[in-house]
Amino acid sequence: MEWVDIDGDNCPVRRTLDLVGEKWSLLIVRDAVNGVRRFEDFRRHVGMSEAVLADRLRKLVAGGVLETRPYREPGARTRLEYRVTAKGWDLWPALLALKQFGDKHFADPAGPLLEIRHTECGAPARVVVECSADHAHLTNRDVTVRPGPAARPLAAEAD
Amino acid sequence: MEWVDIDGDNCPVRRTLDLVGEKWSLLIVRDAVNGVRRFEDFRRHVGMSEAVLADRLRKLVAGGVLETRPYREPGARTRLEYRVTAKGWDLWPALLALKQFGDKHFADPAGPLLEIRHTECGAPARVVVECSADHAHLTNRDVTVRPGPAARPLAAEAD
Repeated sequence: MEWVDIDGDNCPVRRTLDLVGEKWSLLIVRDAVNGVRRFEDFRRHVGMSEAVLADRLRKLVAGGVLETRPYREPGARTRLEYRVTAKGWDLWPALLALKQFGDKHFADPAGPLLEIRHTECGAPARVVVECSADHAHLTNRDVTVRPGPAARPLAAEAD
Repeated sequence: MEWVDIDGDNCPVRRTLDLVGEKWSLLIVRDAVNGVRRFEDFRRHVGMSEAVLADRLRKLVAGGVLETRPYREPGARTRLEYRVTAKGWDLWPALLALKQFGDKHFADPAGPLLEIRHTECGAPARVVVECSADHAHLTNRDVTVRPGPAARPLAAEAD
């Protein structure tokens, strides 16, 4: 069965994109993993309308990527702040992979915007595809892609 | 300088998402890296309108992720097919990272939809964040994030 003949409805990439496959959502997650927690900080830093931000935060909380915690500043009412969940941190490699693509293809002439280094030795962190057995770094030419057990044939279109 | 005070205009993640940060675009790239090349196959397999597909293909070609090549079937006029460029293949780790997230959090009960294995040994390929010096696998707790040379302060909002 070729990829083009496999039904994409249960594709994990599609399902992930249904949750975060949208620029604002991923920029909110980017900010959240970098420590942004408060509505007004997301709004100001990502640069989006309150309505879009509120909608995307709701969706990310419903999807389990962010969770809310109440906080209260002196003299103000209780508000919610947003924290990255364990599930949200599972998006970290994808965000770093997008950063890595951007650092290569859209770099500012001055250099990177953020440097992410191994705390212990100071060397840059990077995203790689590797073999889970021998840890060899893999490119697309080193892998074989096969339909898995969830692959179902794509239904023919109705005329 | 905290992340929330850094101007995100030249952020490589934002610039990458300006190019591919949209569900349909990433699903087209997903299909293209899996060997889909023709307009009608993308339309049928991704399941989108011709207008949206044509728009996203144009954008991906303009951004250098895909390139066109003419082909001609017997008795038909010359058409264009779409191939992944070297720049497009640089998105492969990001796509695999999204797949990995989906395989973990949105798995079909039957198992994975696609299995990607190291051809040489048959073990599954995976995406990891590693130290570029000692190759240790890194989580977000193992890294230090610092503003790089391109970091500029975010301008205060006008009242």
